[in-house]
Amino acid sequence: MDSIGVFDSGVGGLTVVAALRRRLPAESILYLGDTARLPYGSKSPETVTRYTRRNIEFLVERGVKAVVVACNTASALALDNLQLAGGMPLWGVIEPGARRAAEVSRGRVGVIATEATVRSDAYPRALRRLRPDLSVVSRACPLFVPLVEEGWHEDDEVTTRIAERYLAPLLAAEIDTLVLGCTHYPLLKAVLARVAGPAVTLVDSAEAVAEVVAEGLAAAGLAKPEGPGPVHATQHLCVTDGGESFKLVAGRILGDPDLPLEWVEVV
Amino acid sequence: MDSIGVFDSGVGGLTVVAALRRRLPAESILYLGDTARLPYGSKSPETVTRYTRRNIEFLVERGVKAVVVACNTASALALDNLQLAGGMPLWGVIEPGARRAAEVSRGRVGVIATEATVRSDAYPRALRRLRPDLSVVSRACPLFVPLVEEGWHEDDEVTTRIAERYLAPLLAAEIDTLVLGCTHYPLLKAVLARVAGPAVTLVDSAEAVAEVVAEGLAAAGLAKPEGPGPVHATQHLCVTDGGESFKLVAGRILGDPDLPLEWVEVV
Repeated sequence: MDSIGVFDSGVGGLTVVAALRRRLPAESILYLGDTARLPYGSKSPETVTRYTRRNIEFLVERGVKAVVVACNTASALALDNLQLAGGMPLWGVIEPGARRAAEVSRGRVGVIATEATVRSDAYPRALRRLRPDLSVVSRACPLFVPLVEEGWHEDDEVTTRIAERYLAPLLAAEIDTLVLGCTHYPLLKAVLARVAGPAVTLVDSAEAVAEVVAEGLAAAGLAKPEGPGPVHATQHLCVTDGGESFKLVAGRILGDPDLPLEWVEVV
Repeated sequence: MDSIGVFDSGVGGLTVVAALRRRLPAESILYLGDTARLPYGSKSPETVTRYTRRNIEFLVERGVKAVVVACNTASALALDNLQLAGGMPLWGVIEPGARRAAEVSRGRVGVIATEATVRSDAYPRALRRLRPDLSVVSRACPLFVPLVEEGWHEDDEVTTRIAERYLAPLLAAEIDTLVLGCTHYPLLKAVLARVAGPAVTLVDSAEAVAEVVAEGLAAAGLAKPEGPGPVHATQHLCVTDGGESFKLVAGRILGDPDLPLEWVEVV
């Protein structure tokens, strides 16, 4: 009844759930991974908007008090067109990530994201609105999500090669800040940090969005009090397709190999 | 009214359309690419079966005379559960590909495919039914489809590295025949042939299925006569999500950069 609803196309949004748990340990979370229709990053704005609308309806029908769109593609393409009934709070990941980058950058920001997010121009627009002096270079990295799903994300030679190729134009443009504009990418942080080098600050929107949600819930009077007593927060995970690989990666992100998953149909 | 209906999760099935055009130049083709829900290869049998059923219904409602499931994953997971009303012919790609491999192999067959196809064990079962003496080794190659979609498929260093890694266990098992068990993989033929070496015969199910369709239509009395007069065959392409990359790759496969696409909704 009083959970925060979080959705993503797949498993990547759980990096946002992990950040929310650290920042707001008293809050319960209802997660929806739309695994039957992932990935969103290669699809059109119309299709992504339709899926986003239905996923949010699902969370609202389940009685959440606020919604976090933990998918960069859905945030970039669909959020402007959506408003929740009764003024229920709704957050995406673009704005918080852009805000963090604008705070730390010395002038040149690189953005890596899915094709659809890059094509939407959502990050450059948000960054320039916050700091018109920033120069922004973007690059779509369509292989990163399947590399994470393949499990080739820790210190892997092929992944390093692909990261070098994707980051080359951004490093040539001498970026000082790199926005990880897809919720899967924090799982590649070690490789990306090594390839980008020590002069580049990595910005992970998961941490940034957790901060914004904490402020927003407090401002709306919806935050759960964090008393000194025991915490009864729960995490409930729903998926539209019950793959084993989701369970595996989810267990790694949330530090619990025995996460129960509920299969749900969202069309 | 008298087209052959062909569907795939995306663009890969057009390799089957190209093979059908070469083998049956008088036949018209109605193609459906379920791009809004691709890829199928990482999804569960239940989800793939549901999508397959609806895609076939769409083609039948449009009045096709026969259906080709040009997606290996859908053929492997869903075909056994489906039968068309009125005994309309229905073909998948597994059986024809397995038949061709069983004809050419000297004893050791390798199969590369999506995760779902490999997990279904459909190729090894079909191969052993045809030739119980065959030894079969399979390997899921989840990065091949996104590599093709990225356009990194001709003489690319990263693609070659990934192919080497995927094929290593098959080459160690001394395969003499390699089944390209996903309709996207023919687009990687040059890289795969180089990595596999001259001792390995590549089997492309697209060619094999075109042969089976030609025989089947003739046997059912449904084939169009190939007269000496002009040919009026048409190709009509439908997609559930209108991406630009589909158009690009489709143009390359069918040799026509200006293919008109019809957007359709299939849920």
